[in-house]
Amino acid sequence: MTKSIEESPLYPIANPRSIAFFGASNNFMRMGSIMLSSVDLLGYEGMIYPVHPTEEQVRGRRAYRSVLDLPEVPDLAIIVLPTEIVCHAMEECGRKVIKHAIVVSGGFKEAGPEGAAMQRELEQIADNYGIRFLGPNCLGVANPHLKLNPTPLPAEGPPGFVGLASQSGSFITQMFNYLHRHGLGFSTALSVGNEANIDIVDCMEYLGACPNTKVIALYIEGITRGRKFMETARAITPHKPIVALYVGGSEEGKRAGLSHTGSLAGPDEIYDGMLRQSGIIRAHTLGELFDFCLALGALPRPGGNRVIIQTHSGGPGAVAADSLGREGLTLPSLSAGTIEKLRTIIPKTASTNNPVDMTFSKNPMDDFYRIPDILLQEENADMLLVYFLTPDVFIERGMQNMNVPPDTIREEVQKLIDQNVEAFFSLTKKYDKPIIGYTYRSLQEKMVKNLLERGVPIYQGPERAARAMAALLEYYRLRDSLAGRE
Amino acid sequence: MTKSIEESPLYPIANPRSIAFFGASNNFMRMGSIMLSSVDLLGYEGMIYPVHPTEEQVRGRRAYRSVLDLPEVPDLAIIVLPTEIVCHAMEECGRKVIKHAIVVSGGFKEAGPEGAAMQRELEQIADNYGIRFLGPNCLGVANPHLKLNPTPLPAEGPPGFVGLASQSGSFITQMFNYLHRHGLGFSTALSVGNEANIDIVDCMEYLGACPNTKVIALYIEGITRGRKFMETARAITPHKPIVALYVGGSEEGKRAGLSHTGSLAGPDEIYDGMLRQSGIIRAHTLGELFDFCLALGALPRPGGNRVIIQTHSGGPGAVAADSLGREGLTLPSLSAGTIEKLRTIIPKTASTNNPVDMTFSKNPMDDFYRIPDILLQEENADMLLVYFLTPDVFIERGMQNMNVPPDTIREEVQKLIDQNVEAFFSLTKKYDKPIIGYTYRSLQEKMVKNLLERGVPIYQGPERAARAMAALLEYYRLRDSLAGRE
Repeated sequence: MTKSIEESPLYPIANPRSIAFFGASNNFMRMGSIMLSSVDLLGYEGMIYPVHPTEEQVRGRRAYRSVLDLPEVPDLAIIVLPTEIVCHAMEECGRKVIKHAIVVSGGFKEAGPEGAAMQRELEQIADNYGIRFLGPNCLGVANPHLKLNPTPLPAEGPPGFVGLASQSGSFITQMFNYLHRHGLGFSTALSVGNEANIDIVDCMEYLGACPNTKVIALYIEGITRGRKFMETARAITPHKPIVALYVGGSEEGKRAGLSHTGSLAGPDEIYDGMLRQSGIIRAHTLGELFDFCLALGALPRPGGNRVIIQTHSGGPGAVAADSLGREGLTLPSLSAGTIEKLRTIIPKTASTNNPVDMTFSKNPMDDFYRIPDILLQEENADMLLVYFLTPDVFIERGMQNMNVPPDTIREEVQKLIDQNVEAFFSLTKKYDKPIIGYTYRSLQEKMVKNLLERGVPIYQGPERAARAMAALLEYYRLRDSLAGRE
Repeated sequence: MTKSIEESPLYPIANPRSIAFFGASNNFMRMGSIMLSSVDLLGYEGMIYPVHPTEEQVRGRRAYRSVLDLPEVPDLAIIVLPTEIVCHAMEECGRKVIKHAIVVSGGFKEAGPEGAAMQRELEQIADNYGIRFLGPNCLGVANPHLKLNPTPLPAEGPPGFVGLASQSGSFITQMFNYLHRHGLGFSTALSVGNEANIDIVDCMEYLGACPNTKVIALYIEGITRGRKFMETARAITPHKPIVALYVGGSEEGKRAGLSHTGSLAGPDEIYDGMLRQSGIIRAHTLGELFDFCLALGALPRPGGNRVIIQTHSGGPGAVAADSLGREGLTLPSLSAGTIEKLRTIIPKTASTNNPVDMTFSKNPMDDFYRIPDILLQEENADMLLVYFLTPDVFIERGMQNMNVPPDTIREEVQKLIDQNVEAFFSLTKKYDKPIIGYTYRSLQEKMVKNLLERGVPIYQGPERAARAMAALLEYYRLRDSLAGRE
C-alpha cells in the first residue's frame, strides 16, 4: 500500500526544481531572509524566485512584485509572511497554478479562535486550487541530498540516511550539528506544523518510499489520524525501521504540546500500545531517537542477544556489562577455541572472561583487527561491543617519547589512525554481526570520528550503546511478531 | 566523627612533598614510564626520586639503585613493578621508614590463589612497618590542585570540586577529558584497587574532610565494610553530597566486577536501600554520576520542585517539559505580574505559558538577562531551565549579513558572547534559585563553554538536566529525612 515516491504530494515539496520564495528581503533580521541565506549556504541548484512587493533584488536575485509575474510555474512556494497576508499569497499561488507550498508563518490555529478561522480560510483556498501544503506554523523541509535547506540554521555535515517527520520545526533545523557530531545526517527532514493539509502520516508514507531513507524518525506531540497512522506504519516497518519520540504522554509534555502546536495528546499507555502494534520502536528522549536510528540504519540483523565486550580497562568493562544486563542483553562465556586463539596475543594478566579485558595492549594494532576478528568468530556471541580509548594526545605522547622526529609526528599519527580505522572497518564487511563501539572521550577525536564517518556506530557511554542494541533486537522481534499475525 | 584531613592516611598519599618512584625507566612502553610522563606534563613541584636497578638517570632525573640510598625519607612510594618483586620493594620502603605507598602492580588477589598469597605477604610487610597503602592493582591518586597526576593519561582542564573514590582505576585517569568537556574537574581522585590496606570507606572519609571537594562521587563494584560505610556516609551527607554508581547489582555487572577486582557484589535492592539510608544519591550510569555531581556542587538548594522553562523553540520546550514531568518536577503557571512584565519585551506570538516560548528574539540580549531576570522573580517557581541555541556560526552569519566588516567579526562575536555570559552569570549571584541550561549543540561552543567554565551547569539534552534537578531535590529530601531521624 506504500505509494511510489513520485505520487506523494511531498515529492515536489522535498525535491523542487524551482521555488517561489515569499518573505525574504534584504533585511537580514527577517525570518524569510535568514531562511533564504541557509539555502544559499548549502548551494541549492534549482531556481529561486523571491517575491517581494517593493525590492528590485533580494540577496542578489531578481525579485518579483507578484508571483503571477514569474517566468515559469515553480514546483513549490515557500511562504514566510505576516499571518494576515498569507491567505492572499496562497490565493495568488493558486492563480499561478502552483500546486505545492510550505506555509512557515505562524499565528493560525495554535494562536486561538481568530487564527483558527484564518487557518480554515487558508485550507479552503488550497482546496479550491488543488494545492497541497505543509504547515502553517512549520519549517517545512530540509533535503541535504538535494542541497536544499530553507530552514533558519545552516546545514552541517554530509547528507545521511535518517528521514525525520516532526511535529516540531526546531528539530529539522536545530539538529544538523547534533547529527553530524554523532555520525548521522538527514536524508530528508519534514516539519508538519499545524498539519492543515499534509500530516505526519503523509510524511511517514513519503519517507517509507524515499530511497535515501534507511530509517524513519518521528517526533510526535499528538496524532489525529490514529487508524491511518497504524496502517501506514505497519506497511513500512517490515522493510524499514521507524523510531518515535512521543512527548504528550506526561501531563507536562501534554500541556507544552498543546500550547506549541495545539495538538491533542493521549495517555502514554495508549500511544505505547499503538506504536508497538505498528512495529515502531519507541524512544524516550531525543538522544535515544537518534541513537536508535544509528543502530537500526547502520547494523545488520543480530542473531540473538549475546554480546562480547572488548575492553582494556576493568571499570569501563564492568559498567558496560551492567548496562547490557539492565537492557536484557547477555554476556556469554568464550569457547575454549576462542580463548586459545586469544592467549598468544593478549597479556598474561588479561581476562578472557567476558568482558574480555586486555588490561594493556601487547601490540596496539591488534586491538583493532586481530582481537576483534577472533571475537567475531565466536559462535556463542551475536554482537561485539568495543571500548574505544584512542586519544590523539596519547598516541602523540607515545611517539614523542619514542623519539619519532617532532615534525613527522602529526603525519605518523594520522597514518596509524588510518590503518586502524581501515582494519576495524574491514571487520564490518567481513562479518554479518553488529559491531558497536563506546567511548567516554569526545566523538570528535580522530579515530572515533573517522569510524563514525565510515558508518560504524560508536556511542558516548556504554548505556547508550546498550539501549541502542536493545532497540535493534526489539525492532526485529516486533517485525517477526507482526509478520506472524498477518 | 569525620576526622581532620591531616589525620587521614590518605593525606600524604594525595599531598606528598616527595615521592620514591619504582618502575619508571627510559623505556617509554613501561607503565611506570608512562605514569611518570603524566606527572611531568602536569608539572608536579615536589621531589621525585626514581628508583631503578640499572639506570643512572630516568627521564632526566638522577635515579637510585635502592630506595635506601635516597637523600631523604619521601612522603610516598609509588610502586609500578612486576608482581614478584613488589614485596621486596615494600620491605625496602619499610626499612627506609617510608610510611605511605601506592601499589599499582596487579597480579595479586584478583589473579587467583597464588596472587592472594602474595597479597597477604604484602599486607604483612606493610603492617610490620606501619605502612598505609592504596592498592594493589590500582592507579592510586590524581590531585590536580597539587598538579599531581601519576596516572597513565595526561590530565586535561583545570582542577575542580569532584572528589572521586573509585573501585576502578580507569575512572580516575580516563575521565579527565570527559569532565573537562562537561564543565567539571577532580578535586582529588582515588583508585582503591584490591583494598588490601585502605578501602573506599577511608577514601570517602578523606574526601569528606577535603576542602577542595564539594561533592563526592563513588564508583562501587562491591563494599566489604557495610556498616562502617553507612556510618561514614551518614556523617558526611549532612554537609556534603555523595553520589554513587554501583554496577554489581545486575548479574552481568556482578560477574564483570568479580573478574575485575575480585569484589563480591550484592543484590541491587540491598545496595539501593543502603545508599538511600546513608543519604547517598544513586546514579545508574557514569554520565549520571557526574551530571549529578555538577548540579549538587554548583547549585543552591531549591525551594521546591516547580520549574520554569525558557525557550525560543516549541519542540525543545515540549521535550523539556516531558522530561521534567517524568522526573516528578512540575511546571507552574506564571503569575499575572510576571506575564505583564514579559509582554513588553517578547514577541506577540510568544507563549507565556510554561514553557515560556519566545518563538524568536526581539532583542537577543534580552534572552540572557532581562527575560530570565523576570522569570527568576516569579514566586510560583523554584528553578529555571533555559534552552541554549547559541551557535557561533549563527551569530557570525548574522553579522556578515548586517555588513559588519569581515576583519572585525571574530572580535565582535567574542565581545557579544562575553557580554551575554557576564549578564547571565550575574543572575546566578543575584538569585538563590538553581539556574540550569540545556542544549543539543556541542558544549564546546563559545557561549556554553564559557558559562560552564563560570560554573553554570548546562547539560546535553533536557532529560539529563531534568534528572540532575531531580537528584538535587532528592539529596535535600534525604538529608532532611536523615536529620529528622537522629
